[in-house]
Amino acid sequence: MDTSYVHGYAEPEARRLGDQADTLAELLHAGTAYPAGSRVLEVGCGVGAQTGHLLARSPGAHLTAIDVSAESLAQARTRIGESVDWRQADLFDVDETFDHVFVCFVLEHLPEPGKALAHLKTLLRPGGTITVIEGDHGSAFFHPRSASAQAAVDCLIRLQADAGGDALIGRRLYPLLTGAGFDGVRVEPRTVYADASRPDLVTGFTRGTFIAMVEGVEENAVARGLVTQPEWDRGVADLYRTTREYGTFHYAFYKATAHRTPGGAS
Amino acid sequence: MDTSYVHGYAEPEARRLGDQADTLAELLHAGTAYPAGSRVLEVGCGVGAQTGHLLARSPGAHLTAIDVSAESLAQARTRIGESVDWRQADLFDVDETFDHVFVCFVLEHLPEPGKALAHLKTLLRPGGTITVIEGDHGSAFFHPRSASAQAAVDCLIRLQADAGGDALIGRRLYPLLTGAGFDGVRVEPRTVYADASRPDLVTGFTRGTFIAMVEGVEENAVARGLVTQPEWDRGVADLYRTTREYGTFHYAFYKATAHRTPGGAS
Repeated sequence: MDTSYVHGYAEPEARRLGDQADTLAELLHAGTAYPAGSRVLEVGCGVGAQTGHLLARSPGAHLTAIDVSAESLAQARTRIGESVDWRQADLFDVDETFDHVFVCFVLEHLPEPGKALAHLKTLLRPGGTITVIEGDHGSAFFHPRSASAQAAVDCLIRLQADAGGDALIGRRLYPLLTGAGFDGVRVEPRTVYADASRPDLVTGFTRGTFIAMVEGVEENAVARGLVTQPEWDRGVADLYRTTREYGTFHYAFYKATAHRTPGGAS
Repeated sequence: MDTSYVHGYAEPEARRLGDQADTLAELLHAGTAYPAGSRVLEVGCGVGAQTGHLLARSPGAHLTAIDVSAESLAQARTRIGESVDWRQADLFDVDETFDHVFVCFVLEHLPEPGKALAHLKTLLRPGGTITVIEGDHGSAFFHPRSASAQAAVDCLIRLQADAGGDALIGRRLYPLLTGAGFDGVRVEPRTVYADASRPDLVTGFTRGTFIAMVEGVEENAVARGLVTQPEWDRGVADLYRTTREYGTFHYAFYKATAHRTPGGAS
């Protein structure tokens, strides 16, 4: 869900951006704090968008962060520094033991998320925990309603499915985690609701995250013939209408926690 | 959203029913408590489903509850007793001053909800508050996904629209309240998420409230030709699949609060 921000970085803008990033980080990371000394694996850290929040909330933990992309890892290292053990690796190639595993916006891209979770379970000590955060684009609804806007969102869902992922994975976290054999699975929605009384979220989430993400697939969606260019333009314009003074926007992330059976049975 | 419960009332069942009703009541009523002595108007109390919760949380308030149906009011009176000033009235005919107005699952049925809110504002003393709770059926999504189940939900939305209402009104509370001239409008989603780890919500909300509500329009939906009987049956069966051990269900209510300008300007 991390997307580049296109509205400039003047001083007050940068401060506001910080506020809104904090709002989303609080929404997603609240409740996640690892004890000093614990070994934590972040899977698919990308450019480190979540890694900084993890560190801030668990200052004494030993954090290992993996990603398949050397380029992303280099950016993450520049951004966060050397307090993290950065490693270029596929999650299926990791073979170590951790106290806690953290996975955010990763399963949505995997063709076999259940298999990934089952492997991650083998990396946890008995009693160790996993935390998974994913979105669900089926949770996006808005005012004013618009079939064109919904069609643009559907393009994003369709293209992610064609790439082997699932943009509707949030609702599946419970069956995926229980199916992978985790115990004590607890899933909760973490909802973003934006209207004109919450300008940080309108700018930071509706425009800067969600609409930006939709806009990111324009070329692909039109080239693949999922929509015509005029249909696409109407859809995106209608999404922007939801950020006006009368508009509203709803989106639900899901946050799941679970543990490996303390008795040690796999 | 209040529907009859069809699974029997043996002793443990009745206790669990109480638990789940409490869970939903807590979700909807948390944050609503009126001071002793304050004059509160509940609009469209129906059979008193919310009135008892209002009384329990605001024991010293003077509660006036109106409804257009004498039959519903009689049931409410039997259920709650004489501590409420029950009145058969249309909200547009009320002409008194209150400190607080409470409206739950009412606007969704009105052809002109904005006009209703504008009238309710005239009943509030300057500085008085309004609380509005509504659902939004567009927030319903579930696992396993099913086009047939979605079609059944769409019948409910369509039939409510044909009757002059709006089953998707939750997302409109912010523009409706600001449009009616209220100040300090604050809207928040109150989300129900049910999976097998929350059996009370699976039984009480997904089955006992949402699916029961969908089932309530079967005859009408089929008779009007919105779906065929086999399509309907498949849709409802698929909704029940979301209540199995691997299923999940998401629904968002919206709770809004606002006040009339303290200065007294209308």
